[in-house]
Parts: sequence; structure tokens; C-alpha cells
Amino acid sequence: MIYLDNAATSWPKPESVYQAVDKALREFGGSYGRGSHSMALAAGESIFEARMLCAKLFHAPSPENICFASNTTEALNLAIKGVLHPGDHVITGCMEHNSVSRPLKKLEKVGMQTTKVVTSPESGIDLDALEKAIQKNTKLVVCNHISNVAGTINPIKEIGGLCREKGILFLLDAAQSAGMMKIDVIENNIDLLAFPGHKGLLGPQGTGGLYIREGLILDTLKEGGTGTQSERYDQPETKPERYESGTMNLPGLAGLAAGLKHILSEGLDNIEKRELELTNHLINGLEKIGGVKIYGPKVGIPRGNVVSISLESMQPSEVSMILDQVFHIAVRSGLHCARDAHDTLGTMNQGGLVRVSPGYFNTEQDAEAFIKAIESITQGEVIS
Amino acid sequence: MIYLDNAATSWPKPESVYQAVDKALREFGGSYGRGSHSMALAAGESIFEARMLCAKLFHAPSPENICFASNTTEALNLAIKGVLHPGDHVITGCMEHNSVSRPLKKLEKVGMQTTKVVTSPESGIDLDALEKAIQKNTKLVVCNHISNVAGTINPIKEIGGLCREKGILFLLDAAQSAGMMKIDVIENNIDLLAFPGHKGLLGPQGTGGLYIREGLILDTLKEGGTGTQSERYDQPETKPERYESGTMNLPGLAGLAAGLKHILSEGLDNIEKRELELTNHLINGLEKIGGVKIYGPKVGIPRGNVVSISLESMQPSEVSMILDQVFHIAVRSGLHCARDAHDTLGTMNQGGLVRVSPGYFNTEQDAEAFIKAIESITQGEVIS
Repeated sequence: MIYLDNAATSWPKPESVYQAVDKALREFGGSYGRGSHSMALAAGESIFEARMLCAKLFHAPSPENICFASNTTEALNLAIKGVLHPGDHVITGCMEHNSVSRPLKKLEKVGMQTTKVVTSPESGIDLDALEKAIQKNTKLVVCNHISNVAGTINPIKEIGGLCREKGILFLLDAAQSAGMMKIDVIENNIDLLAFPGHKGLLGPQGTGGLYIREGLILDTLKEGGTGTQSERYDQPETKPERYESGTMNLPGLAGLAAGLKHILSEGLDNIEKRELELTNHLINGLEKIGGVKIYGPKVGIPRGNVVSISLESMQPSEVSMILDQVFHIAVRSGLHCARDAHDTLGTMNQGGLVRVSPGYFNTEQDAEAFIKAIESITQGEVIS
Repeated sequence: MIYLDNAATSWPKPESVYQAVDKALREFGGSYGRGSHSMALAAGESIFEARMLCAKLFHAPSPENICFASNTTEALNLAIKGVLHPGDHVITGCMEHNSVSRPLKKLEKVGMQTTKVVTSPESGIDLDALEKAIQKNTKLVVCNHISNVAGTINPIKEIGGLCREKGILFLLDAAQSAGMMKIDVIENNIDLLAFPGHKGLLGPQGTGGLYIREGLILDTLKEGGTGTQSERYDQPETKPERYESGTMNLPGLAGLAAGLKHILSEGLDNIEKRELELTNHLINGLEKIGGVKIYGPKVGIPRGNVVSISLESMQPSEVSMILDQVFHIAVRSGLHCARDAHDTLGTMNQGGLVRVSPGYFNTEQDAEAFIKAIESITQGEVIS
């Protein structure tokens, strides 16, 4: 199987990730922070390592700024619901994932107000429109770093700067960018950064987290055992325990630590360069095929490692099925859990798009195989 | 290391669990329900298997009644916040975990009302007190099946019967009983059952779930991508996707499926019998040692595989440290994230208790080693 669905989850993972998960499962008993025996302490060290490496990757001042969650969706829900109160106004883009637009939709029902600002599939959120959308009660701006459908990169430095200037919190959804390109939370004035552990960070599914800027205390999404201050009836304010109630995903986080070590040892710059080479290779090849429409930024414009296409002759779901069954190529078709993005791209009524997302472990041969397969399909050489 | 901290997480796991996790990590790409390629479908099958086996174990009518969560705490938060609204009244016990008492405390601040009813460390919630506590606006009764501190078993059949009769929802916290004793959600009129995947069910940490009775639609804790009905702005009502936004813990759930298969093949009756033998062995041995106080039900009274003790001569944290460092025995001391239980037991001001919890893979030799170690400590043969 040629795997080109890295925007869903990266695959394969480095061998060290498999081994770290296995070792954690076989060796770590007890619960982190909840026992005084050495097996629980070993588990705690492994979690601390993952926390420290995340902090390092995102240029966070301290490991305590990193709170783990089961996925980006949980981190986004915690961030959004943790800062917004009835009467607050929030600004977001028009190419967001449902993990942003659905929590916002829900909050609208209890008195929060949302403005979605014009977002270009080429260049992301329109900064003038963003500034004009700011109201007295604007509490938060939330947007993705890279669109999971079109690979569009949002101008986060400018957005962060504007938010800081206006005293508005900035939450970045780094689902597609964490581990794929540099993210400096300080330089970009990011107050909250939601990230997955299982995509660019090369860890197992079931991991993710939220960077919370120093001094910011969020309302909690879940309360429960924190392993510290157990005598209190209310949730302690101490970070990160405040946001991490319940037994954590120890093997997953041990795997995440291994994934992060892999990234830091390969070099994030090299990973970004490599993934963009593969992405551009794909775009260049696809551009030459008649009947294929490519969405998002063209070659030369900075973008993420996500390319979505449509074929004149065939529905997206049919294309991905043929790619899977005839060519043994894994991609993802449909709406990619992002209704707004497909509205913006005008692809809602055509069954969405076919998305191809190369990862660090893909090769030029993989990209070439995909291009050739699409060529065959468009030329009617394959009947579904 | 002799591991006697199975109430925190079971250890070791069956070999098949390690192998299932490794296989899932190495072979499953994509996201369950979110891709049409065969690697994502294989992941989906593994999750369905875990769901089906959970339904079987708890006698749930359908796999769709099982919604996965990252741990029991998340499942309890989803259940509690999913059914309660301002103005509602909830009844709970006096030996609950913080994962029940802290969410309830939080809801009190927004207009919910809680009554804690008398709970005996020997026999659990007092049924007369429970009935008397019922008000017109009582919406929910929530309690644990087995106390995580004292091993006390609550009379769930009677509680469930009373709730059904009065039209009140019954949420059971099965953190310590799932996989340790039979739970029939239909027979016991359980509407909501929160369970961990990593304790009695022998799966990896980072797994758990909530059984939701047919016809019951909860408010969501998190909204986001569900892989289905992606065109909708609001969270779909379809179970289980409604409650499972974001990429799931695929390797964890594959491991959970393996753990469940192990339980069903060994036979839940045999597991319960074995764990109680070990628990009674521990109690019988400890009773003979002077200066040791045992909490919870005595031998002969039905109980869970959790025994907590205090020593006249030493603080709990000191005891567990000596057990770890001198005897290489892993137990857990302190408050066990359960303030209410220690208030009820009168052990809040003595630094909690030392908790020992045998699992299916422990032996009589392990129990004997623990008893001998406590004997040595009480006789002053070991100085911390």
C-alpha cells in the first residue's frame, strides 16, 4: 500500500515509536503522579519527557505550559470553552475544521457570537477583514495554521500581532502544521496552541495537547482526579494537572516522546523541506493532466503538505475507491470534516474532493505512482 | 517488582494486548470512519470489535450503546454534564471518587443541587436514605459500583430498581468493577455506565467508555469531526459518533479488544473468584498483624479487590515508599483521588491509607510477600 493520507494520521511511525509504546505498556504500572512506586515514577518521567520535547518544539517557556489531551479536537474544545463566556465575541476563518466550527456553533446557542471572516484558499484569512470584524467584546480569534483541505497557510504572525495589540486571545489549530513547520508560540503571540500527537509529531493516535500561555487559567472541560491536592472539592489551578484529569495515555505519550525525538534529530527544517518537495512534485505532475482541478495555493506559494483535487469525470469517493482497490494507494475523499472549507472552495455539492497528503517517509516514486494512477483514471483506462 | 496496584491500572496486560497494540500501530493508517481506504477500514473493524465485546460484557443490546472515551473520568464528565441542567437535583454517595464529586461541585456553581447520602464502608449507600433524598427535581443518581479506597460494593440492583421506579436516571461508575465482576446494565436498570479500559478490562491506559441506554441522547462534552454528516454545523445525533469527535485511540482500542477477548475466554466468573481469593488471602494475613487497621468490608462480606490499611506506627506515604524501595512491592498510598471516601472512613487527617489491590495475574506468593513486608515494618525491622 502506498500511503498518502498523512493529513489524517502519519504512517508509518518511526520504529522507535513502536518500541517506546511497547516498552511503556510492558513496563509502566500505576498512574503518573498517583503512586509513589518506581513503576509509576518511570511512567511519570516518560510523560515529562514528552511534555518537555513539545515545549521545546513550540518554543514554549516551560513544560508546564503543555497540557495533554486525547486529540486536537479535545484541545480545541478545552481552549474554546475554557476562555469564552456568554456575551463574548469570537472571530474565525471560513476554512476551519468542524472541530472549531462545531464548538463555536454550540456556544452560539448559549449567548456567544461568532464572526467568520473572508478566507482565501491561496493566502488564508484576510487581515483587513479580520481587523474590521473586531468588536469591543471580541475575546478570541481562532483559526487553523494550515487548511486540512487545501493546504492554505494562514498569516499567523500578523494575526497574532493584531490580537496582542488589541488584547484579544489567539488560539491556533496546528492540526496540520505541528511537526511539519516551525511554530514559535512567543514570536507569533500565540496564547493557545492545539496540536495532534499522531500527525506531524509522528506519535500514536489518541495523543494531542494544548499549549497554554503562562498566566492564563482556563475553565476546565473535565474535572476529576488530578493526583495532587486530592483533598480539594474543586479542580486545582496547578498546571498541567488542572486540565489532565483521569489516567493518561501512558503508552501513547511514551510513543509521542519518541516521535518528537525523531523530529528533533532529523531537524524540523529538513522535514518541512522534504514534505514540500513531495507536495510540489505532486502538484507539478497533476497540473499536466487534463480534467484535473487542483485546489489551494499554486506551486511557489508557501503551503502545507496537503493537496486536494477533483476530476471532471468522476466523483471523489469513486476516485479514492479505485485508488485503494486498483492502485493500492490510500488517500481520503469527501468533506474531510470541514464543511466551511468546502463551502469556500465551492466543492460542497460535488461530494467534496480527493485529498492527497504526503509525509516524511514518502518517496518520489509514491508521488509518481499517484500521478500515474490519476492519469489512468482520467483517461478512462480504469472503470470503477 | 511485585505489582499490587491494579486498582490504578492493571499490570501486566495479557501478551495478546501488547501484540494487538503493536500490530495496530504498525498497520492501521488513516482515521476510523474517515477514509475509504483499506487501512482505515481495518482500523474501523478493530474499533467495532472492541465496541461489540464491551456490549457483550455489559449485556448491552447493541455495540452502538458503547461510546469510547479516553478514561473513566471523561466518561463520567460526559454522562454527568450530558444529562444535568440548571435546576436539576442529583444524588450521590459519600465514598465517591473525585471524578464524580468534582464535576458535581462544579455544576453546583451553575445551579445544580447535590445531595450526598449516608454510605457505609461495609455495605455502601443506605437505601432508605437514598429514597428519602429523592426530590421532585431529582434527575440523576450517580455512584460507584466498588469503592476505589475500601472495596465496598454498592447495592446497584436496588439502586437501579428504585431509580427506574421513580423515573430517575442511574449512572454507575464502574472504574473498579468492570472486568472484575458481572455487570448487567439491563438487569440492574443502569442508564449510563462509565468504565475504564485499562483496569479490569486489561487494555492500555488511554481507553475507557460510556454505555448509554437506548433512546437517551446526551448533551456533548466535545464537538468536532465525526466522519459522518460532515456537512452539518451542529453535532450529529447518531450514536456513537456524536460522542467520539476527533481521531480515536486506535492502538489503545485494538489493545482493549484483545483484553476483552482474554476476559471472555478466561471467564468473568473465574476472574472474580480468583481476585477475591487473593483479596481474602491478604485480609486474612493482615488481620493477624498487630498495629494494622483494615478498612472496608470484612472477609465473608462481598467486596472488590481493593484493601486499604493504616499502620499505627507509620504514615501511609512512608509505608508505600518502604514497600517500593526495600521490598519491591508496588502499592498506592495517600488519598486515592477520593476525598469523600477518606472523610467517610475518617482517614483524611492521617495522610490517607495504604491501598493494596491484587489482579488476576497475582499469586498467593505475592500476597504473602506483602503480608510479610507489613509484618516486618510494624515490628520495626525496617527503618525508613
